[in-house]
Order: sequence, then structure tokens, then C-alpha cells
Amino acid sequence: VEKACRIKAIIEYDGSRYKGFQIQPHEPTVQGSLERGLEAIAGRHIRVSGAGRTDTGVHARGQVAHFDICWRHPISVLARAWNAKLPDDIAVRDLEAVDDDFHARFSASSREYRYTLYRGGVASPLCARNAHHVRRPVNVTAMAEAARFLCGEHDFAAFGRPPHGENTVRVVYRAVFRQSGDMIWFDIKGNAFLRRMVRLIMGTLVAVGQARLTPQGFREILLSKEINHPMATVSPGGLCLMRVNYARR
Amino acid sequence: VEKACRIKAIIEYDGSRYKGFQIQPHEPTVQGSLERGLEAIAGRHIRVSGAGRTDTGVHARGQVAHFDICWRHPISVLARAWNAKLPDDIAVRDLEAVDDDFHARFSASSREYRYTLYRGGVASPLCARNAHHVRRPVNVTAMAEAARFLCGEHDFAAFGRPPHGENTVRVVYRAVFRQSGDMIWFDIKGNAFLRRMVRLIMGTLVAVGQARLTPQGFREILLSKEINHPMATVSPGGLCLMRVNYARR
Repeated sequence: VEKACRIKAIIEYDGSRYKGFQIQPHEPTVQGSLERGLEAIAGRHIRVSGAGRTDTGVHARGQVAHFDICWRHPISVLARAWNAKLPDDIAVRDLEAVDDDFHARFSASSREYRYTLYRGGVASPLCARNAHHVRRPVNVTAMAEAARFLCGEHDFAAFGRPPHGENTVRVVYRAVFRQSGDMIWFDIKGNAFLRRMVRLIMGTLVAVGQARLTPQGFREILLSKEINHPMATVSPGGLCLMRVNYARR
Repeated sequence: VEKACRIKAIIEYDGSRYKGFQIQPHEPTVQGSLERGLEAIAGRHIRVSGAGRTDTGVHARGQVAHFDICWRHPISVLARAWNAKLPDDIAVRDLEAVDDDFHARFSASSREYRYTLYRGGVASPLCARNAHHVRRPVNVTAMAEAARFLCGEHDFAAFGRPPHGENTVRVVYRAVFRQSGDMIWFDIKGNAFLRRMVRLIMGTLVAVGQARLTPQGFREILLSKEINHPMATVSPGGLCLMRVNYARR
């Protein structure tokens, strides 16, 4: 009997036309496309497990997934074959053989997300897929000041619920803003994130940027652990899973 | 009788789903969408004249067009009304009342285009719409060296034909490369461009970058004035009309 080998994959995708990463019957999903591609190569169904379940319309530059496959050829041949079976909006960026106990989700030590804002009086057609448009001026300094309150270990219940009723305590290592011209980028790194957490945070930070909320008010929302607060809705297309990190083993 | 006023418009678009700027029967075009939008506001057909006829799939951040309209309200109201009638992939960025003798194409003193390359072993889904993918390594220094030969007044017959059998002499003011990570940008500014000129130049520069042609060989192609030379085909999505300049009047 041939022994299956565990593979770690780094995946990039434009999430625009997918109902998120996680497989769902009768819906286009990234996981569904990945598994169909592998099945075409392996001749049987292979389960692909992702590090994070990105929502409908959310992109990824560095999603990580693992799977088990019997493969005798160089791993670069598998990468090429798989990419040839994938639609243009999904690409396998890297494959690596890993230990049997590697798990894309449970072995991950931290995740990095980027949220992109475009500010301008008129929406930008060339940024529409990858940035959220804010029409009114935003004060990036105020947003950055509020974002600093996110750093450290907190109960983030105000910014999302966990998938299975687990606790809502997470650690944020970094939450910084950068801007150039009309573009604003928010980079956040944490040990893990609640569902919709980055977008809920971003929507509330936009309220700070537009002076509808003070940085102190933002902090009070965080400390309240209550999800019932007014905030802007920000589009999924502005969000991108940049990277998943694993402790060196 | 109300007097019509001439308006200069700055237009941004994602050209992915259009058969170019210029109107064509039964085909989606940017000009067609712009004119339909204006007609919905003015109640009659208004001709919109563009500065440059971008090809199928080519984008613009700063296309310029002019038209004549009878309009009693502030011009900002016209911009808002027009944007409300346009699809999401076209936006009017600015409107300005100009002299009657302003002509988007004939009054233009120079045009600026940007061509974007993405280099990597695997195509990038998140860059697919706005960059051309080069799989093999490219030497940006060699491309920049070749691009310098473009500057000045030359007969550019090797890189395209004029629309109506006019002469093929054009002036290039600037042709520079910039890179960051896996992205490479080529910015070219000229008094005017032949049809497909930027893409034909870019395809030939990619041959230089991949050592299939030397910078001197590039220069010889330019001097040959012959369009029959081997070159890479580069995608229209990598090209963007950034800006059209007009002499101050």
C-alpha cells in the first residue's frame, strides 16, 4: 500500500465570485474548486482543509490549506498539474511536504489580514474589487489611535461571535494604518480571528475616522463586549487574508 | 434659445468588459455607456468625444472627453447625475466647463500610459485584471536601458500604424521602469501614440528583459521602421491610460 503524504499549500484567490472559502452544496466556493481540481488529478476525492474560512467576496494572497495525497513525482509537478485544473481566480502559489501532524488551522500560530479603503468623492472603478470606498473624508490619525487599543489580549465579543460557542478572547499583535494618495491600508495580525471580526473592526474604525465616534468611544465598545453598536458596513472585497504563520518545528 | 456649454470630463474605467472606448454598433463600449448615461439626463443624444481610443480590455484612470450640453445647474450636479446613470466600472472623476474650441483629442499636448507586469512562476489571481503575467525572470535594468532609446522624436512605424495613414512620427518624453516586489511598472509619456503602440513596445521590451533581444537590437527594430519583428504578445489588461495633458490656455 502506497503511503499518503501530507502537503501544505499556499493559495491565492480573488474571492469576488465565491461564496467564501468553505465548501457548501450548490454554491461556488474556493474549497470546492480546489477539491475538484485535486480530484481530477488523483482520480478520487481529496479533502482540503483551510486555515481560515474567508467569507463571501473576501480575497486571499496567502490562505493555507493541507491535504493528504499519494504522489510519486516531484511536488512541483503536482503544483503545475493542480494549477492547470483551477479557474483563473484561484492559484496555488506554493506546495510543501510537511509532517503528518501539520494542520492548516490548528497548527497556525497567527494570521495577518489587510483591509483596503479608497477615499474619494466618486467610487473608483479600478479599485472596486479590492477596496471599500469611503466618500466622506476620513482622519487616518484618529483611526490609527483607536486601532492601538486593539493590541494585546482582549475579549473581542464586541467584534464577532466564535463559530462554535467557544470563548471570544483573542490576541492582536499588530494593528496599523498606512496611506498613499487616496489609498488607506489597515494591517492587523492576531493569533486568531472571530467570524467577520476584521470587517466589524474596520467599520467601527471608519466611524472614528469620520468623527462619528472618538478613539475613546472605540475603546469603550471594545471593553463593552457587546456587539450591538452602530457602525458602517464595509464591503468584503476590501478584505484580504495576507498570510498564515506557523511556529518553526 | 439656450446656449450649449462645452464640458471637459475626466473618466476612469475598468475596460475588462468593453470592446474599447470608441462606440461600435451592438458592442459594449465605454463611449456607448457614457452617451447612454448623458442621454438619460438630457433627454436627447449627446456625442462624447474621447482623447484616445483605448482598445478592448484597456483601462483608464484619466481618459478625457468633451461634449456640449445645455445645463443650468451647478456642474457638480451634472457629475453626480451622470455617475448615477453609469455602470460601476465607469466613473466620471471630474467635470469642468471649458472654452468652445477645447477638443479632447486635438487640444491634447501629451498622453501618459502605464503598463503593469507581474512576474512570478504562477499567475496571480489578484493581479489578473490589471497586470500582464511574465513567468520567466525579466531583467528590468536591460528593459530600462532599451526604453531610453524611445525618448525623443522618432518614426515609430515599427510599433504601430496610424489610424488614417497619417505619418508615424511621434515624440516620446519619458519611458521609465519602476519595480516593487513582483510588480513592474512601465510609464511612458508622448505627444501622441499610434494604435497598439504601447503594447507593441512593451512586448518587445519583455523580449529584451528575457534576453531574447539586446537593448541594441531593440534600437535597431525602432530604427528599422518595420513592424515585422518577433515579439511577445502582452495582454490589454496591463495597459492603463493614466492622464491626458493640455497646454494652459
